[in-house]
Amino acid sequence: MTEPAPRRRGRPSRTGEESGPGARERILEAARGQFAERGYDKASVRGIAKAAGVDPALVHHYFGTKDEVFAAAIEVSFEPALVVPAIVGGPREAIGERLARFFIGVWENPVSRAPLLAIVRSALTHEAAAKVLRTFVLRRLLERIADELDVPDPKFRAELAASHMIGIAIMRYVIQVEPLASADPEKIVAMVAPTLQRYLTEA
Amino acid sequence: MTEPAPRRRGRPSRTGEESGPGARERILEAARGQFAERGYDKASVRGIAKAAGVDPALVHHYFGTKDEVFAAAIEVSFEPALVVPAIVGGPREAIGERLARFFIGVWENPVSRAPLLAIVRSALTHEAAAKVLRTFVLRRLLERIADELDVPDPKFRAELAASHMIGIAIMRYVIQVEPLASADPEKIVAMVAPTLQRYLTEA
Repeated sequence: MTEPAPRRRGRPSRTGEESGPGARERILEAARGQFAERGYDKASVRGIAKAAGVDPALVHHYFGTKDEVFAAAIEVSFEPALVVPAIVGGPREAIGERLARFFIGVWENPVSRAPLLAIVRSALTHEAAAKVLRTFVLRRLLERIADELDVPDPKFRAELAASHMIGIAIMRYVIQVEPLASADPEKIVAMVAPTLQRYLTEA
Repeated sequence: MTEPAPRRRGRPSRTGEESGPGARERILEAARGQFAERGYDKASVRGIAKAAGVDPALVHHYFGTKDEVFAAAIEVSFEPALVVPAIVGGPREAIGERLARFFIGVWENPVSRAPLLAIVRSALTHEAAAKVLRTFVLRRLLERIADELDVPDPKFRAELAASHMIGIAIMRYVIQVEPLASADPEKIVAMVAPTLQRYLTEA
């Protein structure tokens, strides 16, 4: 126990690498993996740190509590800072189509689908995770979209749009109801875009 | 062990009552309670029988496997035999409004909300429960609605409508995002009805 600790197999060095420029991204990646594999309850800051090959203190340093790691891991999936301008920035008459296509695109990509599924499952089974989704993510994402809308009750409208997309994700990717589960994404976009357009732009 | 079993406290007699006309309903009620409290995985035919005060064999006799008890317990919440004609039977130009009002009404009622939440949670976390929802319920409910529609891809349309209502239920009752969580039900119906109307009637 007093001899110098050998470098553990499969784990990055604990000196130099761990607080390097990639550490934050490695932690987020590990967090997504842990929340997806283990669920909200069983994921821990310690487990995330181990998977990222860093000290748990570094996770706390970058993100704070487990709830805050969870929120950050979710935000990476959405990247609201990039997404919101891309959706609300273009021609207003196609905002519904852009939103539908973005949302379906995120879910069609298996890399982003797995953590999103984990988020939805966690939020539906653990109040703590639901609160994170409600407080950090939806508020931050939907409020930024709502801020750009010229309709009455913009937040209510943005939430109705989001509810439709979440429901489609659940029916298509989780419950896998046919024919929706196998439908061409563009067919879904074509049907749903006018709905989102109406919610987001028509008084 | 050989003396006559005394009647247990808090448990109905095991003779006479158990196969009476109310037994089937008691079993379904107990099943809803067990699935809601314990989740799909932990609920068992034995536990449901115990809660209903009947022999497990009677549960099997009436419903078959645990999956089939689950499906029957869900169907009671929807009663498709009553619901489908009520929704598709009235004037076609108000089908969207009837569907929206029915769905919100079921979720607004705390008695039906609890088992529905249990169903959605179970389906999102257990493939077996998702399969039951997919196979028995959605197919039976949505196909019956789709059969009445005069649009291309009626099942796809019915599923899109259902996805919106499921998404609203999750955002409003599970994640409880404001202002949607506190919105007047009629305000939601007013916004959503035209969407459902378009999906179900416009080619």
